[in-house]
Amino acid sequence: MTDALLSAVQGGLDVVDLGRQLRVGMPQSPNHPQFWHTLPRRHGDMTRADGGSAANDMITMGCHVGTHIDALAHVSHDGLMFGGIDAMQAGVGGKYDALGVHSIAPMIRRGVLLDIAGLHGVDCLDGGYEITVGDLEAAAKNADGGVGEGDVVVIRSGWGTKFAEGGAYVGGPSGVPGVGEAGAQWLAERRIHAAGADTIAFERLAPGGGHALLPAHRVLLVESGIYLIEALDLEELAGRGWAEFTLVLVPLNIYGATGSPVRPLAVRTA
Amino acid sequence: MTDALLSAVQGGLDVVDLGRQLRVGMPQSPNHPQFWHTLPRRHGDMTRADGGSAANDMITMGCHVGTHIDALAHVSHDGLMFGGIDAMQAGVGGKYDALGVHSIAPMIRRGVLLDIAGLHGVDCLDGGYEITVGDLEAAAKNADGGVGEGDVVVIRSGWGTKFAEGGAYVGGPSGVPGVGEAGAQWLAERRIHAAGADTIAFERLAPGGGHALLPAHRVLLVESGIYLIEALDLEELAGRGWAEFTLVLVPLNIYGATGSPVRPLAVRTA
Amino acid sequence: MTDALLSAVQGGLDVVDLGRQLRVGMPQSPNHPQFWHTLPRRHGDMTRADGGSAANDMITMGCHVGTHIDALAHVSHDGLMFGGIDAMQAGVGGKYDALGVHSIAPMIRRGVLLDIAGLHGVDCLDGGYEITVGDLEAAAKNADGGVGEGDVVVIRSGWGTKFAEGGAYVGGPSGVPGVGEAGAQWLAERRIHAAGADTIAFERLAPGGGHALLPAHRVLLVESGIYLIEALDLEELAGRGWAEFTLVLVPLNIYGATGSPVRPLAVRTA
Amino acid sequence: MTDALLSAVQGGLDVVDLGRQLRVGMPQSPNHPQFWHTLPRRHGDMTRADGGSAANDMITMGCHVGTHIDALAHVSHDGLMFGGIDAMQAGVGGKYDALGVHSIAPMIRRGVLLDIAGLHGVDCLDGGYEITVGDLEAAAKNADGGVGEGDVVVIRSGWGTKFAEGGAYVGGPSGVPGVGEAGAQWLAERRIHAAGADTIAFERLAPGGGHALLPAHRVLLVESGIYLIEALDLEELAGRGWAEFTLVLVPLNIYGATGSPVRPLAVRTA
Repeated sequence: MTDALLSAVQGGLDVVDLGRQLRVGMPQSPNHPQFWHTLPRRHGDMTRADGGSAANDMITMGCHVGTHIDALAHVSHDGLMFGGIDAMQAGVGGKYDALGVHSIAPMIRRGVLLDIAGLHGVDCLDGGYEITVGDLEAAAKNADGGVGEGDVVVIRSGWGTKFAEGGAYVGGPSGVPGVGEAGAQWLAERRIHAAGADTIAFERLAPGGGHALLPAHRVLLVESGIYLIEALDLEELAGRGWAEFTLVLVPLNIYGATGSPVRPLAVRTA
Repeated sequence: MTDALLSAVQGGLDVVDLGRQLRVGMPQSPNHPQFWHTLPRRHGDMTRADGGSAANDMITMGCHVGTHIDALAHVSHDGLMFGGIDAMQAGVGGKYDALGVHSIAPMIRRGVLLDIAGLHGVDCLDGGYEITVGDLEAAAKNADGGVGEGDVVVIRSGWGTKFAEGGAYVGGPSGVPGVGEAGAQWLAERRIHAAGADTIAFERLAPGGGHALLPAHRVLLVESGIYLIEALDLEELAGRGWAEFTLVLVPLNIYGATGSPVRPLAVRTA
Repeated sequence: MTDALLSAVQGGLDVVDLGRQLRVGMPQSPNHPQFWHTLPRRHGDMTRADGGSAANDMITMGCHVGTHIDALAHVSHDGLMFGGIDAMQAGVGGKYDALGVHSIAPMIRRGVLLDIAGLHGVDCLDGGYEITVGDLEAAAKNADGGVGEGDVVVIRSGWGTKFAEGGAYVGGPSGVPGVGEAGAQWLAERRIHAAGADTIAFERLAPGGGHALLPAHRVLLVESGIYLIEALDLEELAGRGWAEFTLVLVPLNIYGATGSPVRPLAVRTA
Repeated sequence: MTDALLSAVQGGLDVVDLGRQLRVGMPQSPNHPQFWHTLPRRHGDMTRADGGSAANDMITMGCHVGTHIDALAHVSHDGLMFGGIDAMQAGVGGKYDALGVHSIAPMIRRGVLLDIAGLHGVDCLDGGYEITVGDLEAAAKNADGGVGEGDVVVIRSGWGTKFAEGGAYVGGPSGVPGVGEAGAQWLAERRIHAAGADTIAFERLAPGGGHALLPAHRVLLVESGIYLIEALDLEELAGRGWAEFTLVLVPLNIYGATGSPVRPLAVRTA
């Protein structure tokens, strides 16, 4: 057997988990149904004649909670989705057939970390800070090979260090650091495949400003067909100093949904 | 940069999706909360001042619906889970801290297909047929390198061809083909990492017999610490004749749950 | 204090519950999200410092499961709801503001039982039997004062005796007895307030025919503004021989929904 | 026909709705699954051959959200529920069979309003104010006939005026006014049937103190078998000056649940 992939796999891998654990009470956007998990049946509730017992679960959640990917159907602008599809018409039937999350192919691709907090020498950028084109270019120079077409680019603001604090991570009064319109254009010009952030939205939010304007979503999802990955945990990745890696991301194949919880992995040969 | 994995990835991959699409109305076990997906907000419902609009989702489901993985916490026998953990005590608090699905590491491993339907020269084994040790051994001979420690072994009965029929796939009156106690012991002796099937449960079910006895669950989950993957789609994989491949499987990191929907991939260098 | 209502109440009441118990696994239409109830927290999971503990619940369900009321927004015909409201436009925003279940006032009104099974001297009418105008008129003669404007009229087919059987109650292959177009017209002419049945839909369903045509829904909900109450338990009411009673029905005040689970009561002075 | 109740009903009624509307985003305790309602199918999604269309709903919620009733199974103390039932044992199976909300009979009873805010001449008592026995006695004097055995007593703090403000209603930092242990004892001694409040919990909460101690729940639910009704809207009732009325409250008949959303009514002869 000479499958190059399997050989690499069997040579030993080092995996960094970029996903947040799904827990009741974790911070999430109030726009989306809250994550809940409960056990309808626990061991001890019902035991079969042979001594066996099965416990099980019930989950309810939005598709944009925890670490998640936005399908292109998530956002429209002036009534149109990516490719000029009529957004209102596309939703008739209750499923986004054309650009739903089921249309995102599983990703096993080159991933690149742009560590903007690291570039600035801080643990965390300030709330409301807009990551500039200069920031992106400087961070890309640190990545072996820079940012290329088809890559998945994850951008670290350090805001993920606030995840455990709950409300502070959502960031209403403080604002949230992130990419704005100019940075999104820079990413789109590089024809990347997907862009990710360690904030609840891939967007710079002004202090107290909320989600009134979402230019990065417009540029990337609507105008460029580039997927967004949100609420990533990029701390360990940055700690290891991995600028380049294999990114594995497999969305749930939910017919017609506008997003999916995901658990992206950064992987390297050990 | 000479990361062997990334080189293999960038050399080009061929991916076979082993997961079922999550759709309202798909066949699932009545023991688990039904999968539902709906769009609380569609494009056209609310448009921001700048012309932007975001659609979103609500999901409710059990963790053992669609293609899914069973955590070790899913099953106990005579009051004990794998490793002798007291099953009733472990559920106090409403989360399985010790053996919940959050404790399953993402898998990027050697995968092996044992195509029992192919071995028998049929599209689909009969309902109630018990896959024998002889079947497993014969099919393993067809796999390059056979079945080894740490592998993920997926076993095709052909029953997945009935998935689109709905109720027939669940299989109450007809029974379902699958591995019984002897086959499960054979797999456990090989110290595999996980075992999968194209049926709703990794288990041979007698016609009309339902889920009263689940010996393969006991042997694999409780006695051996081997994960189960259920409701796989193995048709394309068998059609391609891939006996060996890289198996990518990333469970959702749901704290304390007994399982997770998954979308496993079989991957080879193109 | 001489409030006539309170005096009657304090004189003693006899209450017959017309609602079904909400239980996981009860029969319901597959068109609607399944009823599930589970306990996220049980006693013993978490005890406060003072020895107190609180258990709680999670429910997921459609609004047309169990005994329930249909709001006028539930059904449209040729694109229009009751009063000529554009049905597609009314749903924009994800809530039926105009005719949603929140617009149904709580009912404390005269109720009338038309016991058609009793009239025919059978426990249960045949699947697919259409209750005729003659049936309704004959049964109304048995009710003191007949059927009057503003009444809530509940019609017993005896099909409720099948509720405990599960699938048989839903009635696909067998059909279901009920009121058809002519009977609905008769009820509408009497300007009743609401009409109820002991079947899963207020409708006669042909054997094997399913829900393709729903003429009683059209006549009553869309053309006449008369609410429908479904999956009633009318067995005890009929057993007591109450033709006339006070009907108490309080829908949940769910903003914008097309229906609500309800637990209607028939009440008389003891 | 001379049914006294129906005569009173047909003489004309005046109804005050004591329930809050169930809306996505309304204030609720973070301990309970959030209320969500969405429309899986809207008119226009699927039209039958005859021009008919049905829209429907999906709801997910805790049973202690919006205006709701606490079943006796909701709270235990030192491991015991009302009547000395072992609380942990009672939850095995995932349903509270003994004291679940299905065991609460629908209520059509004398209701009494104790308007403590009115007594103090304020719109709203201060956060953290404990309603005293003196307050209850003074308010009861204003009610015709006082507080009697079997009554449903609703106690107005005026805090319900904050419901529309959202977070302020929940009241963490401010505390919440309400009945404490002494007041609960006073109510229990009067052998009332149920007690209600216009706050999220029937309890005085200290500023910043949260729900660490819940003495009124212990005294009423655990020691006395008296149901609690929470998040009532008592503003219109107080505005009308109704001290005495017929209280109609019909819990959903959810097998094994610890509570139910309700929509209680205060009713009088017009």
